[in-house]
Amino acid sequence: MTDKNTFWSPLVHQLEPYVPGEQPVGDELIKLNTNESPYPPSPKALAAISAHAIDNLRLYPDPESTELREVIADYHRLSSEQVFIGNGSDEVLAHAFNAFFRQPKAILFPDLTYSFYPAYCQLYQIDYNLVALNDRFEIDVADYRQDNGGIIFPNPNAPTGIGLSRSAIISLLEANPRSVVIIDEAYIDYAQPSDAGVDLQSVASVLDLTQQYNNLLVVHTLSKSRAFAGLRVGYAVGHVDLIEALQRVKNSFNSYPIDRLAQQAAIASFGDEDYFQLSVDKVIASRTRLVSALEQLQFTCLPSAANFILIHHASIDAPALASFLRDRKIIVRYFSTPRIDQYIRITVGTDQQNQFFLEAIDQFLAA
Amino acid sequence: MTDKNTFWSPLVHQLEPYVPGEQPVGDELIKLNTNESPYPPSPKALAAISAHAIDNLRLYPDPESTELREVIADYHRLSSEQVFIGNGSDEVLAHAFNAFFRQPKAILFPDLTYSFYPAYCQLYQIDYNLVALNDRFEIDVADYRQDNGGIIFPNPNAPTGIGLSRSAIISLLEANPRSVVIIDEAYIDYAQPSDAGVDLQSVASVLDLTQQYNNLLVVHTLSKSRAFAGLRVGYAVGHVDLIEALQRVKNSFNSYPIDRLAQQAAIASFGDEDYFQLSVDKVIASRTRLVSALEQLQFTCLPSAANFILIHHASIDAPALASFLRDRKIIVRYFSTPRIDQYIRITVGTDQQNQFFLEAIDQFLAA
Repeated sequence: MTDKNTFWSPLVHQLEPYVPGEQPVGDELIKLNTNESPYPPSPKALAAISAHAIDNLRLYPDPESTELREVIADYHRLSSEQVFIGNGSDEVLAHAFNAFFRQPKAILFPDLTYSFYPAYCQLYQIDYNLVALNDRFEIDVADYRQDNGGIIFPNPNAPTGIGLSRSAIISLLEANPRSVVIIDEAYIDYAQPSDAGVDLQSVASVLDLTQQYNNLLVVHTLSKSRAFAGLRVGYAVGHVDLIEALQRVKNSFNSYPIDRLAQQAAIASFGDEDYFQLSVDKVIASRTRLVSALEQLQFTCLPSAANFILIHHASIDAPALASFLRDRKIIVRYFSTPRIDQYIRITVGTDQQNQFFLEAIDQFLAA
Repeated sequence: MTDKNTFWSPLVHQLEPYVPGEQPVGDELIKLNTNESPYPPSPKALAAISAHAIDNLRLYPDPESTELREVIADYHRLSSEQVFIGNGSDEVLAHAFNAFFRQPKAILFPDLTYSFYPAYCQLYQIDYNLVALNDRFEIDVADYRQDNGGIIFPNPNAPTGIGLSRSAIISLLEANPRSVVIIDEAYIDYAQPSDAGVDLQSVASVLDLTQQYNNLLVVHTLSKSRAFAGLRVGYAVGHVDLIEALQRVKNSFNSYPIDRLAQQAAIASFGDEDYFQLSVDKVIASRTRLVSALEQLQFTCLPSAANFILIHHASIDAPALASFLRDRKIIVRYFSTPRIDQYIRITVGTDQQNQFFLEAIDQFLAA
């Protein structure tokens, strides 16, 4: 059969799609594999879904998500023209690769990072060079002082969880004024700025720097700290010219990417700051306890500014541990990637979930 | 300022995005401009949204929409491997242009058709040739017997509303065995097969022909006859090799395009066939009455197999009428496109909405 050669665009044969973490259906599992919040979304957001005049589902949503953009702009003290909304931050990132990185020069991102980036590059036929993390698995911005067509990485990085300081990102921006720099802050809410507020050495959002650097695009998601993975809302913040490019691509692809219920729920979520902070603080406190317990068991934990931890144990085979946990209905994420193929990544769950996880580790070590 | 030249991918400058019909927010309008159903979605679908364990919104949805694909496959008596789901049929179409039409030859579509097609072509840098509708605004499949890299049109066509017979589509498929042929059946549920069932001369879905023709992709939406414009679900049906290409593109773009509530509501909608048929039958009956009333007012109505009618009046200026109606809070769709710039397109509303519309026309004629 030659169907695929006859009917597929040539590009399609070359695609190596992203493979997301397992999303089991209808099983009683402790799910510590895809970095979801262990706590539900704000009750106000849930109420907004129920209260939405549900008969209105027959009508198209606002294609520009106008009210949601205004709410997000107010929250971050920007104008709504500096905000772009997508169907999850994965869609935001896809449009951003298309809008900014389809240029002749190779773009740069870390060798260990979000594994969707190479898939976007294949989809849009963008060259890229991997920049190795240093021996401590950190991003060293000095390594990004090379000719490039753009730079992207998450901060904190995934799957390492390690954050980059505000001063490092400023030096990156200063060194690359002609490249679009995308900072994917999916996990930034779990970073803990110093008690003195956002100082230069702290790991903290650089979203405000979009006011000063017209080449900076900062991407956020509601899937993690706002517990809306199931509802699909992400956004980008940047100079109006960058946002205009994203809008042009979006409106050449799908006019109505964000449904009515997602728009309403997201608006309500930004109106419940107390609940949001409480959920985030609980995860940060659980992370501290979990790291401490793991270190007592002789695990090495990379310093995490996110809601997950990349861990390693000198006398444990990582895939064997992942498999052992899976048999006990605890799912963690294992990557067979070089350099981290003896690590596993665990999402910080509730204290109870983390306790089950630690007990299973004890069993593994005892066996 | 050179920001746009510095930071935008060169392609972005060339995009002429699709402009959707107006989606007014919070106004008491009679909205007959974007072909939504005048009736709400099935109560069972609304119940499914409320009943969904809403705490689960913190968890990612099933990236493959497995259960929804199975429900759609059962409904159409196919296997779920023949079904692809997207975030509205606009996203399905975007991925299909990418997956099948990025080939050296120009694709073909009608000169008067869904105006998103040229926007997709620009986004994916696909050449296209427009094939003129005949003098009666019909698609003549004989005009598609020319070398091409693919064929796409809606059936019934938009904005004309005119349907193409099953036999015509079969002859198109027979004449183009090496091209992917996409039939966009957004409005097919409003076609009325003959009383004898689906005969060759009737305007009816060709979805079943995907079992025989491995180059046929049929696209459906839940935005029209299932009243889910606000929830964003569309799908494509075709040979497993075509569906595999769409999956590869989708998984290189966004793993989780369909949120949890949309998946649940769509599943419930397909489980309420009686409600679905009743809603569709009411619209068809209203269409008949509306055409009859308009013809009494000396309007020419193109024969519609859809939930909208393209109309013309020899002594009325179309944009003036659209503007007059807008002032009376009735929104219709006007296209300044050559050949139809003296037509307006009206969505079939409830009988009451149609009556308001007809009364406004009376006022316009009296003025």
